[in-house]
Amino acid sequence: MTVNTDKDDQPMTLVTLNDLHTARQRLESVLSRTSLLRAPWASCGHRSLFLKPENLQITGSFKIRGAYNRLSRMSAAQKARGVIARSSGNHGKALAYAARQDGVKATIVMPSTAAKVKIDGVLEYGADVRFASPEECPALTEQLAAEHGYVTVPPFDDLDIIAGQGTVGLDISDEAVAAGLDIGTVLVPVSGGGLISGVAAALKLTHPGIRVVGVEPELAADAGESLRAGRRVTWPTERVSRTIADGLRMTTVGEHTFEHMRVFVDDIITVTEEEICSSVALLARRAGMIVEPSGAVTTAAYLYHERDLPAAGGHVALISGGNVDPDLFELLRKEAPLPFQTCRG
Amino acid sequence: MTVNTDKDDQPMTLVTLNDLHTARQRLESVLSRTSLLRAPWASCGHRSLFLKPENLQITGSFKIRGAYNRLSRMSAAQKARGVIARSSGNHGKALAYAARQDGVKATIVMPSTAAKVKIDGVLEYGADVRFASPEECPALTEQLAAEHGYVTVPPFDDLDIIAGQGTVGLDISDEAVAAGLDIGTVLVPVSGGGLISGVAAALKLTHPGIRVVGVEPELAADAGESLRAGRRVTWPTERVSRTIADGLRMTTVGEHTFEHMRVFVDDIITVTEEEICSSVALLARRAGMIVEPSGAVTTAAYLYHERDLPAAGGHVALISGGNVDPDLFELLRKEAPLPFQTCRG
Repeated sequence: MTVNTDKDDQPMTLVTLNDLHTARQRLESVLSRTSLLRAPWASCGHRSLFLKPENLQITGSFKIRGAYNRLSRMSAAQKARGVIARSSGNHGKALAYAARQDGVKATIVMPSTAAKVKIDGVLEYGADVRFASPEECPALTEQLAAEHGYVTVPPFDDLDIIAGQGTVGLDISDEAVAAGLDIGTVLVPVSGGGLISGVAAALKLTHPGIRVVGVEPELAADAGESLRAGRRVTWPTERVSRTIADGLRMTTVGEHTFEHMRVFVDDIITVTEEEICSSVALLARRAGMIVEPSGAVTTAAYLYHERDLPAAGGHVALISGGNVDPDLFELLRKEAPLPFQTCRG
Repeated sequence: MTVNTDKDDQPMTLVTLNDLHTARQRLESVLSRTSLLRAPWASCGHRSLFLKPENLQITGSFKIRGAYNRLSRMSAAQKARGVIARSSGNHGKALAYAARQDGVKATIVMPSTAAKVKIDGVLEYGADVRFASPEECPALTEQLAAEHGYVTVPPFDDLDIIAGQGTVGLDISDEAVAAGLDIGTVLVPVSGGGLISGVAAALKLTHPGIRVVGVEPELAADAGESLRAGRRVTWPTERVSRTIADGLRMTTVGEHTFEHMRVFVDDIITVTEEEICSSVALLARRAGMIVEPSGAVTTAAYLYHERDLPAAGGHVALISGGNVDPDLFELLRKEAPLPFQTCRG
């Protein structure tokens, strides 16, 4: 499947259903199944919430799907060279885990602003960690790759990564069919766009009637602006760095992911910092899960942005990860959450 | 299926596979599926851990299964009378939820020692709550039922309750087959015995080769002693009240549940208070879940009682619930956990 890009007339490739199914076969025996959880505390009338808890996935986020899929596609010669990635944490932790399973050396370049729990997660799986300022991470990654011959595993702008993350979408559509669930809308966090690209492709290629809505922090809403502008825009690092959602601080989406979003995503909406914090607290109290701020944006969208969403039907809030510093989590949990109404009016 | 009891020659009835399958059909459209989660952080060599997270079930514990199944079996006339139960919290919360779905009045008799989060959970679903000392709860329940004509929903010693809880066992065996998981041992918390009775029946009637091991706190190890003695023994309330596992403070198992355990359970082992607290902290840190102390006993058994368990194969730790007071949870999470080794030696 190809589309024309906005940049030139070169067709850009989109992942296919076959890519997604092949990725799922590779992942099946190593991943946890994260079945949809009902959230009756947030459901009312004709509107209901299901949680897709990828925070419970091994390594604590969906990122293992893309990283493992990408690594599986490497030759023995590539694996012998070692791998490198830049990551605010979850991609790095996932790649470190996947690499260790395979006996591959991994180096992770992290922004110096990364959450300690994420740094610890990467170190725990035996990867080398190198730090740089958020702006300098890409250059340091390139430099180390060139010096040592490491194979770069991009965090999102890669078809194998997108196909891997997209297996979350296959999970959702398969479970909705098998259990006869009425799923009309799927809410997906957006940063560089790897997750939503794969999930939206999987859903639209299997169930085109399902609405796919991205969710960004107001402070890092470059993807929504890009979609509306019809071209990739970049937000300043100092602005996106201010969101508490440390996994969603990319300043721009990727080239491949932008094309996927243009083709497969219906809408992108934003949530406030206060709504994100409140949702972390509510997910702890009502769903019993430790969710990182980036993972809580979709629940925030469901709870506080009813007007931007269909008034009826099942909504899936994809929870992308659970790697949050324990002290920050405790602080958020203790904050009185915003009120939320399960019923309109 | 019938067996002779130790008390007399009256045969006592055991739940059948048909009872279990019928219960599952009743529950399918109201419950969350709680798929097995891999725990690579606790797996090593030939020994691996899967978590069955019933803490993520609606109402925060497995108890909704039995309560809903029992309520579904009542006549309209019985429902019109209202229902009553005694409960340290999770059964009461589940019954309150199930009753509200059906427009049935519910009264819950709770020990004055019940956790605040559990009292709040019951109140939230609109039930009437009455308090008594742990010893006086049964008598108060009987009295209120007699006065008002309420139908008593026993917490565990009832075949419909046992069959409902047993659907957890069907989940485990079905998923193990479907995903080709090597599950050799299933660890189940034991209090009054409703959960382990149903789960053990489901597993032994479908996969007799799977080992079913109960887990109790050392401070409330009456079920293990009963099994070894061949008769139900009762422990003093003041002793069992001392365990932090507030859901496992029953002083004796039931008549029906004792018979199920004699027929279907392979072993019952104990864990210390320190091991329980440590496991709550580890499940928070490594599995990202808020688990109540009663729910953590099975993880404690896997981590700290390797010598009492098979040296190889997949172990399932059934996590029974997640309703823990937030401040207690935070205290446990902050305690340095006991060390644990993933590998022998």
